[in-house]
Amino acid sequence: MANLDQVFHSLSDGTRRAVIAQLANGPASIGDLAQRHHMALPSFMKHIRVLEESEIVTSRKRGRVRMCELRPSALTAAQDWLEQERRKWETRLDQLDVFIETLAAKEMTNEKK
Amino acid sequence: MANLDQVFHSLSDGTRRAVIAQLANGPASIGDLAQRHHMALPSFMKHIRVLEESEIVTSRKRGRVRMCELRPSALTAAQDWLEQERRKWETRLDQLDVFIETLAAKEMTNEKK
Repeated sequence: MANLDQVFHSLSDGTRRAVIAQLANGPASIGDLAQRHHMALPSFMKHIRVLEESEIVTSRKRGRVRMCELRPSALTAAQDWLEQERRKWETRLDQLDVFIETLAAKEMTNEKK
Repeated sequence: MANLDQVFHSLSDGTRRAVIAQLANGPASIGDLAQRHHMALPSFMKHIRVLEESEIVTSRKRGRVRMCELRPSALTAAQDWLEQERRKWETRLDQLDVFIETLAAKEMTNEKK
């Protein structure tokens, strides 16, 4: 089960989002990813660690290269949470619409009397 | 335009997510929200400020009470970002499936030769 605190924290940084966007196109080595972001390896590794701790990214050694891969289930958990709140919000707005329509209809009836 | 760094940072805390979940059901006063979270008002106000800075929540004085309301557009921006990456990821997996099927088909043809 993904920890939403960690997942959303991971997503709160532009470099980490760019890494996710890149890995969505396929696995990549840490060296390639760091180069793309013009960042020194130690600083970049901190971002990778945050992504790994939130279980958004997994990495493994392949020969002398460490490859990173996306694990979409953590992102799905974040998406599901947002979707659930959006539905609640929209249901509420729909109910509000119905309420306002009912009020308007009542007013029309009262005016006709 | 929502700042995704701020929006995702807002979402990275359980108390703030609970406030969002509560406001998805309708506006509430800061007093009511703080009480629900058994939190001292100054600590709670910090969370509200983070939510306001990310434009997820807006608040206004109504008489002597400050009311909070959800502004769903910032959450939609977060959802859209996640959806976009999910689609890229799924497209890639679909292409991988096609590639593997093509490989398997080729192998079958070679075996028959």
